[in-house]
Amino acid sequence: MSKILSRRDLDFLLYEWLGVEALTARERFAEHSRETFDAFLDLSEQIAERDFAPHNRRNDIEEPTFDGVRVQVIPEVAAALKVFTESGLLAATLDVGHGGYQLPHVVARACFLWFQAANIGTSSYPMLTMANAGLLLAHGTEEQVATFVRPMLEGRFTGTMCLSEPQAGSSLSDTLTRAVPAGDGTYKVSGSKMWISGGDHELSETIVHLVLARVAGAPAGVKGLSLFVVPKHLVEPDGTVGERNGVTLAGLNHKMGYRGTTNAVLSFDEATGYLVGEQGRGLAYMFHMMNEARIGVGAGAVALGYTGYLHALAYSRERVQGRPVAGKDPAAPPVPIVQHPDVRRMLLASKAYVEGGLALVLYAAKLLDEPSPEHDLLLDVLTPIVKAWPSQWCRLADDHAVQIHGGYGYTREYPVEQFYRDNRLNSIHEGTDGIQALDLLGRKVTMRDGAGLALLLDRIRATARQAPDDLGGPVLAACDRLARTTATLWRDGNPTVALANATAYLDAAGHLVVAWMWLAQRNAAGDRAGAFYDGKRLAARYFITHELPRTGPLLDLLDSRDTLMADLDDRCLG
Amino acid sequence: MSKILSRRDLDFLLYEWLGVEALTARERFAEHSRETFDAFLDLSEQIAERDFAPHNRRNDIEEPTFDGVRVQVIPEVAAALKVFTESGLLAATLDVGHGGYQLPHVVARACFLWFQAANIGTSSYPMLTMANAGLLLAHGTEEQVATFVRPMLEGRFTGTMCLSEPQAGSSLSDTLTRAVPAGDGTYKVSGSKMWISGGDHELSETIVHLVLARVAGAPAGVKGLSLFVVPKHLVEPDGTVGERNGVTLAGLNHKMGYRGTTNAVLSFDEATGYLVGEQGRGLAYMFHMMNEARIGVGAGAVALGYTGYLHALAYSRERVQGRPVAGKDPAAPPVPIVQHPDVRRMLLASKAYVEGGLALVLYAAKLLDEPSPEHDLLLDVLTPIVKAWPSQWCRLADDHAVQIHGGYGYTREYPVEQFYRDNRLNSIHEGTDGIQALDLLGRKVTMRDGAGLALLLDRIRATARQAPDDLGGPVLAACDRLARTTATLWRDGNPTVALANATAYLDAAGHLVVAWMWLAQRNAAGDRAGAFYDGKRLAARYFITHELPRTGPLLDLLDSRDTLMADLDDRCLG
Repeated sequence: MSKILSRRDLDFLLYEWLGVEALTARERFAEHSRETFDAFLDLSEQIAERDFAPHNRRNDIEEPTFDGVRVQVIPEVAAALKVFTESGLLAATLDVGHGGYQLPHVVARACFLWFQAANIGTSSYPMLTMANAGLLLAHGTEEQVATFVRPMLEGRFTGTMCLSEPQAGSSLSDTLTRAVPAGDGTYKVSGSKMWISGGDHELSETIVHLVLARVAGAPAGVKGLSLFVVPKHLVEPDGTVGERNGVTLAGLNHKMGYRGTTNAVLSFDEATGYLVGEQGRGLAYMFHMMNEARIGVGAGAVALGYTGYLHALAYSRERVQGRPVAGKDPAAPPVPIVQHPDVRRMLLASKAYVEGGLALVLYAAKLLDEPSPEHDLLLDVLTPIVKAWPSQWCRLADDHAVQIHGGYGYTREYPVEQFYRDNRLNSIHEGTDGIQALDLLGRKVTMRDGAGLALLLDRIRATARQAPDDLGGPVLAACDRLARTTATLWRDGNPTVALANATAYLDAAGHLVVAWMWLAQRNAAGDRAGAFYDGKRLAARYFITHELPRTGPLLDLLDSRDTLMADLDDRCLG
Repeated sequence: MSKILSRRDLDFLLYEWLGVEALTARERFAEHSRETFDAFLDLSEQIAERDFAPHNRRNDIEEPTFDGVRVQVIPEVAAALKVFTESGLLAATLDVGHGGYQLPHVVARACFLWFQAANIGTSSYPMLTMANAGLLLAHGTEEQVATFVRPMLEGRFTGTMCLSEPQAGSSLSDTLTRAVPAGDGTYKVSGSKMWISGGDHELSETIVHLVLARVAGAPAGVKGLSLFVVPKHLVEPDGTVGERNGVTLAGLNHKMGYRGTTNAVLSFDEATGYLVGEQGRGLAYMFHMMNEARIGVGAGAVALGYTGYLHALAYSRERVQGRPVAGKDPAAPPVPIVQHPDVRRMLLASKAYVEGGLALVLYAAKLLDEPSPEHDLLLDVLTPIVKAWPSQWCRLADDHAVQIHGGYGYTREYPVEQFYRDNRLNSIHEGTDGIQALDLLGRKVTMRDGAGLALLLDRIRATARQAPDDLGGPVLAACDRLARTTATLWRDGNPTVALANATAYLDAAGHLVVAWMWLAQRNAAGDRAGAFYDGKRLAARYFITHELPRTGPLLDLLDSRDTLMADLDDRCLG
């Protein structure tokens, strides 16, 4: 069985729960069928196993280096990206007119999870390129699409997003990079950008940077930000790559994990840039890409947790050590560690985290395939949870995977220690967990008079009512509780009080949402016989009985409108 | 201010809370005074800052390598160990007759924390040597003391403990290494030992291994284990180092962190060994060393968490980013991130973890200085908590430290990412968290009809009764609750049921014990004015109101005598 992902679980989620075959009734997906979906899934598994997984460790040990002239990346990366592009996966969800396959997002998301689980470092390049291309297709001119998007989809160019600056990470309103009209319709872009994943390398003919910058005279704050295409090289009218643009690599960041993806500090010095859409709408366009990237980060966290879990499960069945608690006869033969209760605890918890996280990511992706105002609203509310919950809990699955491997798990001879380091990034990039919490409680649950939260709770309740009472009951109660707590927090509209414990709110809401995902899987499993369905029923029970109660103290704290953090005098801290 | 540890906090804990000056009334410590204690503390801080901290990162990047002949360690390590030995700290707690200073354990523990926080990799060598020497002083012959202990205390030799084997990590009863009497009073020791910290290097003239092995014909299980001194080189009658003994390095393990300490697979091939004490008592002697090592591991986890916290606190005051929630005027100047509630949450939680953990470690150490049957019992009960609690929660402080640093915290340009990796080991070595949980619930709280737990709860209650009601009340309630839960779990003496959720028990008991440590600090702070005391009062309040409630769902689960883990069919897991 693959230790990258479980195809059996993907099939269950896609076909037995989400019923993605029914999407083929839609005009956009009319050319598709279970067979074409399966063909993409099969292909993804094959390429991930053959071209991505084998160099995952080498990507870590021999991380990219900058020799002062160019960035060196191990050759397996370019080879894997070539196979990926040729497979058609890079353009899978795009219109046929753009060279795509109009594959549903939910299936494409499942496909891409194979690559993220097999090699998060290498998979970041196409992920960023797809997000970049998607933004330009939505907001760019025809010429920008022809010049930049087509070569990206052909694998000749790669893409990045350049938001952060050394002094402005979470706080984009402090962006200093400036753009000056050059008089010919282009702009001269100058400034410093930080944390640019895929920001420099020799993996493509050039790199298409999407850069947030402020046009001279624009207002302060995020409303003054515009978006520019700034390629590493200028592109000639015939589409070939010309001379270098004013973008230079100031240095690479050396990370704890995720080392296979270059991460750069870039200097823009009067670089030629092309305005995307209208001035002052840069952040709005970028949010298009960022929301997709946030779901991608959540998916990456799930993928790393999932492969960690599968490695730990396999190890727990091979590794023989000690005897079950009840019969400590030293003459009895030792048993595989999967028989020890504490190892099972870590395995079952991990299963609940990674399969719950996977369900959430696929559920969110499917909302994109059935667009409606309601689905847009639901996705808006869910996005901070899809991003942050797996970043915390699927990371914990990797932590458990290390622990289950014991001393071996702490060594670089076993892959789980890399998963643990790699997954640590996901709580940081594309908006930290704390930023997601503020987004959820400060914006998403209050917007449109709370319509998003009400819709979410309606959906959860509908699922809970179909579940066995002993599982559905606690979830129904938690829905009521979260609604009350939200009202309590915002009762006087004071954001300092309401947001004082925003992270506790995100934690509670996240666990409720994943409890919902478990009830949904429980309902889909029904009474069907077999170890696979037993596993779904067991994990659903585990999540409701062992995990959901964690929300109790969090909601108690929120209900108390505690402002210990907001009020404290930081001199007390030491 | 030092970012290694807080001397102000150590002074508070040692002098204002634990009253260690009163120890000088004891005959053993009669030559000491506040001045001599302070001199050792000052010296430790100086040496840690000057000789240990500066090479902490180099220890990580240029980890020890084995060229097939010898193990290469960066030269700063030997230099630091020389200074450490010459300072007198290696023998600080030992009898004057053995060249020691009869320093109280509690003061020595505080001193050693400076080295663990400054450089956990380098500090492991003296920690292991001290534990080894302590065991031989307690159980070895005069000749063994003369031959091995004296050179260890002079810094000429270093020591290890060799328990684990490739097939026997947590399960020592499966030890296969065997010892055959050579006919001259010595033994020939053969077998393979795994995870031997400090197991090979050129930092000392030779290495004194303490090896668990089974004499031919000994019974199965732990009762058949005996302990042997097996030096890397034979020692000549004049005390000089002679030819190599039959101990060879089979390889080094390459770890996620803690890289400055070599970790070896050792092959013993008819190596000459000297029996320590009586046959069959090996594990009992080793537990002497292991209990000390477990407190040392807890202390290491505290030290790494503490330095992580201090780095994060300093960074949060320097790093300017964003605006406080209530006033999002983009024209307002950005603020230091310490003003953001979510950063404060992580800082205050970290403070509560690391200062609570430090208090616990020092409390436990002081029990050794006032030996009595009661104190022995209390230390027995506390040891698994002292080991496991900081390994989880002070590790979380390092996790928070990474998060507070944002992207910078994920890079190797900042020290917190190393602390995070280093601290991951502490939940694994010297008995995993799961093993500590079984030790606590399966042995420590049941032994002597529960006298240990009763004593612990009495001590906690006495402190809680002196605390303000709103803080003491929840702790008193938790004491009653833990006592009831313990009785419920063991009511029919079925270990399979009682131990099914042992980790939840450890988690709950650990949080209760640290809540006690916070009440004790709160009581010691009293109403004294100043930011330092405000901080103690604030963190105590935080721990009781934000942390202690976590125990509720854990105790609910335990009360339900849930056996989901024990009963499950592992085929369900995937």
